[in-house]
Amino acid sequence: MGTPNLSIDLDRLIGRIGALAEIGAIEGGGCCRLALSDEDRQARDLVVGWMSDLGLAITTDGIGNVVGVRAGSTDGPPVMTGSHIDTVRTGGRYDGCLGVVAGLEVLETLNDAGIRTRRPLAVAFFTNEEGVRFAPDMMGSAVHQDSLALDDALSVTGIDGATVGEELDRIGYRGTAPTGASRANCYVELHIEQGPILDEEGVTIGVVEGVQGISWTEFTIGGVSNHAGTTPMRLRHDAGIVAARISVEARSIAVDMGGDQVATVGRFECTPNLVNVVPNRALMTVDLRNTDEDKLRAAEERLFGFAEQAAAEERVSLERRSLARFEPVVFDRSMIDLVERTADAHGYSSRRMPSGAGHDAQMFAPNCPTAMIFVPSRNGISHNIEEFTEPEDLGAGANVLLHVLLERAGG
Amino acid sequence: MGTPNLSIDLDRLIGRIGALAEIGAIEGGGCCRLALSDEDRQARDLVVGWMSDLGLAITTDGIGNVVGVRAGSTDGPPVMTGSHIDTVRTGGRYDGCLGVVAGLEVLETLNDAGIRTRRPLAVAFFTNEEGVRFAPDMMGSAVHQDSLALDDALSVTGIDGATVGEELDRIGYRGTAPTGASRANCYVELHIEQGPILDEEGVTIGVVEGVQGISWTEFTIGGVSNHAGTTPMRLRHDAGIVAARISVEARSIAVDMGGDQVATVGRFECTPNLVNVVPNRALMTVDLRNTDEDKLRAAEERLFGFAEQAAAEERVSLERRSLARFEPVVFDRSMIDLVERTADAHGYSSRRMPSGAGHDAQMFAPNCPTAMIFVPSRNGISHNIEEFTEPEDLGAGANVLLHVLLERAGG
Repeated sequence: MGTPNLSIDLDRLIGRIGALAEIGAIEGGGCCRLALSDEDRQARDLVVGWMSDLGLAITTDGIGNVVGVRAGSTDGPPVMTGSHIDTVRTGGRYDGCLGVVAGLEVLETLNDAGIRTRRPLAVAFFTNEEGVRFAPDMMGSAVHQDSLALDDALSVTGIDGATVGEELDRIGYRGTAPTGASRANCYVELHIEQGPILDEEGVTIGVVEGVQGISWTEFTIGGVSNHAGTTPMRLRHDAGIVAARISVEARSIAVDMGGDQVATVGRFECTPNLVNVVPNRALMTVDLRNTDEDKLRAAEERLFGFAEQAAAEERVSLERRSLARFEPVVFDRSMIDLVERTADAHGYSSRRMPSGAGHDAQMFAPNCPTAMIFVPSRNGISHNIEEFTEPEDLGAGANVLLHVLLERAGG
Repeated sequence: MGTPNLSIDLDRLIGRIGALAEIGAIEGGGCCRLALSDEDRQARDLVVGWMSDLGLAITTDGIGNVVGVRAGSTDGPPVMTGSHIDTVRTGGRYDGCLGVVAGLEVLETLNDAGIRTRRPLAVAFFTNEEGVRFAPDMMGSAVHQDSLALDDALSVTGIDGATVGEELDRIGYRGTAPTGASRANCYVELHIEQGPILDEEGVTIGVVEGVQGISWTEFTIGGVSNHAGTTPMRLRHDAGIVAARISVEARSIAVDMGGDQVATVGRFECTPNLVNVVPNRALMTVDLRNTDEDKLRAAEERLFGFAEQAAAEERVSLERRSLARFEPVVFDRSMIDLVERTADAHGYSSRRMPSGAGHDAQMFAPNCPTAMIFVPSRNGISHNIEEFTEPEDLGAGANVLLHVLLERAGG
């Protein structure tokens, strides 16, 4: 590219992250900016102001996604980056925001250096990535990339009774730019890892090869409530023990399969939940993830088979409900190579890895070459006010983003 | 005894059970008469009235236990029976009441038949057997039999903030008869099984050999809350999986030990209890019971050892707290034989069995020959408005009680 020494301005990057974090700030350093809330609107206004200062052509689409485009020397679909600025209820300041702010920082760096790219460059923030107030998550990018119909998204009712459409109107972010027809030359997103691998291994750049497939299952087990002292073991129909056995099996599945397979029992409830009463009802969830769809399916089959057998042995009822099911997403090989090569070229240590969490990038993967860049999360903590990434890692990620975008956009 | 054909009046027995059940009646046929409540006072007044009608010498002691004595031809400690008339919040009409009403029925049967016994006969109802409003349970019989100091019991504060002493005064049942010095010739109590064994086996009379020892342990496990997708299995500190493993081990202990050993995980809670978050905290209880103290101790040791090992393997913290610990109670061999012989003589099927639940009788066991008679609970259900015992089983139990008391009191 002839610009190997070009570098983003770390202080400016961190300054923008800090300014964004003041909106919806919560004690201890975190943020609460639920999608389409007043805080979200203030944050949107701030970012749109920055886009405007950078001279970008700004459009807002029907689901409230905002895209700022820096013209290239040719027309055509832009080389795109972006992420989200909504947060969970006790969010940190880096999740999502880093990707948006780093995109702007890249464009400002190019402005300052007087560099014009061949292809246009675009920075976007997508509506409701977190899915806390309105389901599903990654709503804006899903509509943007045609995997969710705009009208379906607009009619979603949130946990407080308001709909997406009403709230977009209320905060003034229901735009007119078309959705569903939006295509990009490619999409690359910088994000914090939200997991412990890079931090634990002391590696700076995560070269994300794809997003794990997710399988969420809820089991409801129905037994008989009995006295803990007077009921012989052979006469019990204990809903709780079946739930416990399924938990232990889920762990065994992950350990036996190894690789990327993970299994989590996050929810576990017993009724009546009294020390001396055999539980007559248990509700539990199992979260299975794998980067390989065949392996994920094998994990599900083993889990479901075990659950049925355990329920039969205890003579209790078992209901199984799928709460979510996403196939794994595989990112583009050439984009992955480019991210890795760029990290190497700038002397940053890197490792290939899957993303365990969902991201806006996965919505682009079916439609254009897509990749992600991860930077470390201290202790793997995210969705928490203690979320933290070292400034030098933020800078490294933004510089990798800069040079990947430059490479794709062309000098 | 020369009175082998003497029999109680089943209609009268059932009539009194029904009259008692009208006090504190709840929809569906159950009762709510928490200890020392207004409903408890009304029930006490009704039973005291019946005692008075039967010509008994009635005394009330400092903890509100009421004893009605029918004089014998000689003085000395009475042959005693009784139980309790307080209930849990959603209690049935048989738990406790059967023993009190059957005792009165026995005395009325003797009155009607003009039979005078050598020893005095006494029927008692003891304060706060259930322990729902005031802890501990079996409070009245414990004070009566000197295993709990009167002053300690009187100063207990209940779940609604009132003390036992205040509530005894309020309902007019703080008596003057001495406690702690009360001795009986023997004590035998008729009670519903509150478990499924007799019902399942089609046996009429349970010859109770003792009360299981009880060990209640609460485990609090402290791990680290992490993202279910981004945290590799090897880096997890999952409080929930350790709790699940302890649950499964508790079941294995009961199954491996067999015999009377039972194990129940009744309470199981995870924090934050979200599908995609590794639990950072789990709270669970294990209820272990056995009729043999050595075996109960062995069960505890295996459980505690496993819990520590499982916590160490997951690198989580483990706190263990004893919520209750009672050694097993063994009833008197000659009294057990007498109950069994009496059931046989009257053509009732019987089986020896432990009591899995605590009863007032166990407070007498250290001080005088003691036994219990069980009758079936349909489907083992108790502490529930669906609690039910067939009328003919109620009659069988009362008849066994009649002839056991007669045998002990002497013609």
